[in-house]
Amino acid sequence: MTDKLYAGIDAGGTEFKCIVAGGPDQVRAHQKIPVTYPEATLVACRDFFLRAQAEHGDFAALGIASFGPVDLRRDSPTYGFITSTPKPHWVDTDLVGYFEQVLGLPIHFDTDVNGALLAEQRWGAAQGLHSAVYVTIGTGIGAGVMVDGNLLHGAMHPEAGHMLVPRYPGDPFPGVCPYHGGCLEGLAAGPALQQRWQQNPKALPDGHAAWELQAHYLAMMCMNLALTYSPQRIVLGGGVMERAELLPMIRRAYLAQINGYLGDQKAVMESFITTPGLGSMAGALGAIALAQSP
Amino acid sequence: MTDKLYAGIDAGGTEFKCIVAGGPDQVRAHQKIPVTYPEATLVACRDFFLRAQAEHGDFAALGIASFGPVDLRRDSPTYGFITSTPKPHWVDTDLVGYFEQVLGLPIHFDTDVNGALLAEQRWGAAQGLHSAVYVTIGTGIGAGVMVDGNLLHGAMHPEAGHMLVPRYPGDPFPGVCPYHGGCLEGLAAGPALQQRWQQNPKALPDGHAAWELQAHYLAMMCMNLALTYSPQRIVLGGGVMERAELLPMIRRAYLAQINGYLGDQKAVMESFITTPGLGSMAGALGAIALAQSP
Repeated sequence: MTDKLYAGIDAGGTEFKCIVAGGPDQVRAHQKIPVTYPEATLVACRDFFLRAQAEHGDFAALGIASFGPVDLRRDSPTYGFITSTPKPHWVDTDLVGYFEQVLGLPIHFDTDVNGALLAEQRWGAAQGLHSAVYVTIGTGIGAGVMVDGNLLHGAMHPEAGHMLVPRYPGDPFPGVCPYHGGCLEGLAAGPALQQRWQQNPKALPDGHAAWELQAHYLAMMCMNLALTYSPQRIVLGGGVMERAELLPMIRRAYLAQINGYLGDQKAVMESFITTPGLGSMAGALGAIALAQSP
Repeated sequence: MTDKLYAGIDAGGTEFKCIVAGGPDQVRAHQKIPVTYPEATLVACRDFFLRAQAEHGDFAALGIASFGPVDLRRDSPTYGFITSTPKPHWVDTDLVGYFEQVLGLPIHFDTDVNGALLAEQRWGAAQGLHSAVYVTIGTGIGAGVMVDGNLLHGAMHPEAGHMLVPRYPGDPFPGVCPYHGGCLEGLAAGPALQQRWQQNPKALPDGHAAWELQAHYLAMMCMNLALTYSPQRIVLGGGVMERAELLPMIRRAYLAQINGYLGDQKAVMESFITTPGLGSMAGALGAIALAQSP
């Protein structure tokens, strides 16, 4: 553990969670700031950190785990920007530049899902693993990926939530993704559930056909993630996964689909596909984990 | 460039290509050795290298790029083995151990597709890139992956050829994968083409419906690869890609499917999805590229 204090921002689409901490057991201050206009939201974050600094002392670094798409290429003129988001007012917002200027700290910047994965890998459900995937299934579907000890970025960052998967037999739902219709996110994120069943997914009872379809789509996602990234573990989070009966259904459907191709995984399914260990703190602690990166 | 000589084995399912080289322009000796029984094949490789050593001098290292599945975990008791292959006699064959014993060289071991990718990245169609995917579409479908400058391994190694993709509308073919039926390999590798159209794929004329379906499946594969790995380039090789009309059809189908989600890729398609630069030498040079790894 460390005695140093770190600042973190879990920059979500509806609120920015600001945190000052040394780790999960050393949270000194935190505050949720609503996402309105960049000027208002960012200034409120700055003010929170300046107050916390006056009270708790200096921070070693700031971690920002942001909704995307974001520009992570350090040699890019728009490094540290939220780029082509559909969110009004937030296109081309220079997060890293702003906080460098007002806080004068080293900044570590990554996607929200890569942050959450790093926190889970350090303190949660993926501790000590070198290769793991964290997927959030909520208003969208996004994946953070660590392979061989490194967070995966590539040319931009993964957008695995938009992968194409086969239809559940006979499923006529066209999907709701504005780009792809029935890609995974278009078929299986929260808004797809809402649109398909014409009600709030939380109101759908256990045993409803909705969960059979949902398990099918998320199991095929897990199979494609397992085959492409070769992870030691897949952690499934986000609002949709709060439905407790879903996880065992996904595991069963995964085993049926993969059919032993990656060896006999039956005995290890409970650890291979699992849920987050840090609960609602994964996002904010993700920003702290990023801040602590070398 | 280097003055050192390296030894390489492109360990394929039907023949082992042995090579002694300093790089693509400094090939000193090479020989194809048929795959029969491990004892016979491995001894013939050893004899080739001992003769080449007597003639050309010592090698700095040996690279082995092998068909799989293979065990790449350095801390595993079966590191360096071909593991659960369906190929008769070759289950649990200790490639690295054998050549360490008979040649006494440092050995770099990886999958055939990771080797081919590394050669393409060093000398071929992916030069200077930090993130790229090489896919062979032949008797099977396999992918080698480099992300952020590192070959991707994970818990085992990617098996992206078995990913699930949506059906071409109305396609009734069940697929030929013994594990998954209609996974990508089951629908779009050479044996699937043969089985679906009941003739040698090479005999199918340009303009045949086969190529429309084939382009559809490979375009969806490229979309899933682009979304999961975020590569700068996807290199498509293997026997099936020798059909020249396929590449532009795949590019068109990819653009239609991804629908601008990763930005306007029209202008860069010729470099984003392309074919290998090293031709039939990619495999053997892959073994040399592995041998030269730090």
